[in-house]
Amino acid sequence: MTTIHPNDPTLQSFIPVRPGSHFPIQNLPYGVFSTGADPLPRVGVAIGDDILDLAAVAGLGLLPCVPPGVFHASSLNQFIALGRDTWQATRQWISELLRKDNPALQSDPCVRDSVLVPMADATLHLPVDIPGYTDFYSSREHATNCGTMFRDPANALLPNWLEMPIAYNGRASSVVVSGTPVQRPNGQLKLPDVPRPVFGPCRKLDFELETAFIVGQPSALGNSIAVDDAERHIFGMVLLNDWSARDIQQWEYMPLGPFNSKTFASSISPWIVTMEALEPFRVQSPTQEPMPLPYLGKAGKDSYDIMLEVNLRPAAATHATTICRTSSRFMYWSMRQQLAHHTVSGCNVRVGDLMGSGTISGRSADSLGCLLELTRNGNNPLTLSTGEQRRFLEDGDTVSMTGWCQADGYRIGFGDVSATVLPAQPSRAS
Amino acid sequence: MTTIHPNDPTLQSFIPVRPGSHFPIQNLPYGVFSTGADPLPRVGVAIGDDILDLAAVAGLGLLPCVPPGVFHASSLNQFIALGRDTWQATRQWISELLRKDNPALQSDPCVRDSVLVPMADATLHLPVDIPGYTDFYSSREHATNCGTMFRDPANALLPNWLEMPIAYNGRASSVVVSGTPVQRPNGQLKLPDVPRPVFGPCRKLDFELETAFIVGQPSALGNSIAVDDAERHIFGMVLLNDWSARDIQQWEYMPLGPFNSKTFASSISPWIVTMEALEPFRVQSPTQEPMPLPYLGKAGKDSYDIMLEVNLRPAAATHATTICRTSSRFMYWSMRQQLAHHTVSGCNVRVGDLMGSGTISGRSADSLGCLLELTRNGNNPLTLSTGEQRRFLEDGDTVSMTGWCQADGYRIGFGDVSATVLPAQPSRAS
Repeated sequence: MTTIHPNDPTLQSFIPVRPGSHFPIQNLPYGVFSTGADPLPRVGVAIGDDILDLAAVAGLGLLPCVPPGVFHASSLNQFIALGRDTWQATRQWISELLRKDNPALQSDPCVRDSVLVPMADATLHLPVDIPGYTDFYSSREHATNCGTMFRDPANALLPNWLEMPIAYNGRASSVVVSGTPVQRPNGQLKLPDVPRPVFGPCRKLDFELETAFIVGQPSALGNSIAVDDAERHIFGMVLLNDWSARDIQQWEYMPLGPFNSKTFASSISPWIVTMEALEPFRVQSPTQEPMPLPYLGKAGKDSYDIMLEVNLRPAAATHATTICRTSSRFMYWSMRQQLAHHTVSGCNVRVGDLMGSGTISGRSADSLGCLLELTRNGNNPLTLSTGEQRRFLEDGDTVSMTGWCQADGYRIGFGDVSATVLPAQPSRAS
Repeated sequence: MTTIHPNDPTLQSFIPVRPGSHFPIQNLPYGVFSTGADPLPRVGVAIGDDILDLAAVAGLGLLPCVPPGVFHASSLNQFIALGRDTWQATRQWISELLRKDNPALQSDPCVRDSVLVPMADATLHLPVDIPGYTDFYSSREHATNCGTMFRDPANALLPNWLEMPIAYNGRASSVVVSGTPVQRPNGQLKLPDVPRPVFGPCRKLDFELETAFIVGQPSALGNSIAVDDAERHIFGMVLLNDWSARDIQQWEYMPLGPFNSKTFASSISPWIVTMEALEPFRVQSPTQEPMPLPYLGKAGKDSYDIMLEVNLRPAAATHATTICRTSSRFMYWSMRQQLAHHTVSGCNVRVGDLMGSGTISGRSADSLGCLLELTRNGNNPLTLSTGEQRRFLEDGDTVSMTGWCQADGYRIGFGDVSATVLPAQPSRAS
């Protein structure tokens, strides 16, 4: 058997992969899962409709590139911390093991059964322990739309926006994995006709369509990461729904930024797609004018053409309506610019840090990444395929985001990040 | 020997405690330390000029209230997670062991030497792993001064300020312990006479005098902590210097709040003073008008009278100049209100979370908690006792903050949080 590059489009697995599946052998995203039969969380790789149990594979001695125990873990942090050479070696090993012409896992039914788990039988967990969560604001279209609605349409972008990837610190404790229900937050709302705020459930609950990257190589406090080194620090990407309470946000955000309007939940997809798998889908980034300061580098082939969709399904509906279709290729600030900016002050990053892109919006009316933009702050309600209208999210709504890169004949996909909105907690002292 | 309450003012230790010491037997703050002879970090309690090595005490079987190994740890998180009853029992045990009339530790010189370490011989570490760092903005005087300088003197407080304890998410990765040098950050600066920002070392480096509390009891995602329950979730307090790059801040902070201007370092004092030790120093909080919404409760005896000082020593100087004297008693929003607000959206908190008060400023010109206020954004330089002037911090300056509660004849002190400013990292691509 000859070594074939894991991205080779002709590669095929002995495991059947449906056309359109997000998880062909060229993808091999990492996640953490458990099963009813074995409730201990462990690391796996998605392949077709199955999960390859890496703890089991390692237990058979078939992953000698990784020290024992690393995949018997409730998060990927230990594995990621082993570094880039190990990521690449492991990807190569897994690719070889799953190849159609490799008998190692497929020939003995006992071996096969011991290492493969139907995804439908598994519970997927948060794939990483997230020490820090940062959210950028890197879509020019989104920033322009927000500035138009809340500030001055003639000067929608603030002067700093074209000079740096604007960001804020998010709340890491409330990052949850896809499938976790999200409770509508309570908070202070400032109604236009009442002098003082009222307390109650958010009335303008929104999603935000984002991608996010996971930091794979840490940096020390005081050291900045140069823009040309930054990609070496990135392990992979997920989809992110940065839930937002627009009414709470509008009242609280001056002057220190969003807080309770964002800290109640942020959902991520369970599979981390590696930068190696995404490499074939790099595309030229948008031209940056003015040219950024030198520490931010020049726009190159730094974007990824990830097709993105948001689907909304009301509680009683059998089908979801696709309410947004866009791509991440038009993001103004690239991930390497984000990471260079984040650390230029000397701020350190850690393995597992989650860095969100900010809401991804395109230019057309059906490519906007949140309801705030899609409905113009509730003024132009959306009509769903059920005939129902939505200004903002209602209890029981399920928001599902999906994303994939399209190759010739197959997709490198992210699966989805999905969650249902639960009613607000009854307030004890409203 | 009869049990005496650990706060009893008549209690004395067999360990000598100098008059004015921050660490009499009534205090018993927790920290993490190591020594040259034993470089493994472990938990200790400050007493006079010594540290009581709790790992050693537990090894002798003298702390049966805590499971073995809990104090043989590089952070207090495990101990804190044991809960309030254990905190109280442990405090009582340690108080008894250190009493003048208890022979257990003092009678045998070998025992005594094995459990006591001169503080001068120890390295103090970050006392907790900090999963999340939140910084509030709860001094009315500070918020008013900032609003006056940067917005409208006639409407210095934004309308939301009197309705809620405004806060933002900080960066937990760059929280460091007292003594760690702090490097001047590089970043984007917008100079008034140049159309585009320039890149370079911060020219307006500042400190912020704060206290902070450490979360001791977690809350689950989706559950709010009621204002009347909130104090049960607080383990103790430290001093916090929230270093700030004012020029970077002013250019970056719209619309998502401070980011690089704050994420490069935040310093805390090494000893966590427990809420039990601080209990005798509760004072009536300032009247809140308008009355806060019910979920924030009413102002009661919720403040702590902690005397605070900031000292500044230039590189060549032998003495520091005290540039701020104030007290935390006038803080507008209390810690229980902060925690109730933080979680009212359903945001979860975790053991070890650090929650800063925001800059603490009084009303008089010598009670302002940062140089931005003390020098009116650099317009009125301070003159130090050396004759030197300061608009903002210079390389080599050492900023030292201290705080204590004054009782009749003794102090419950925090020690200090101190750090020296290092020059900025030479930029590779400016």
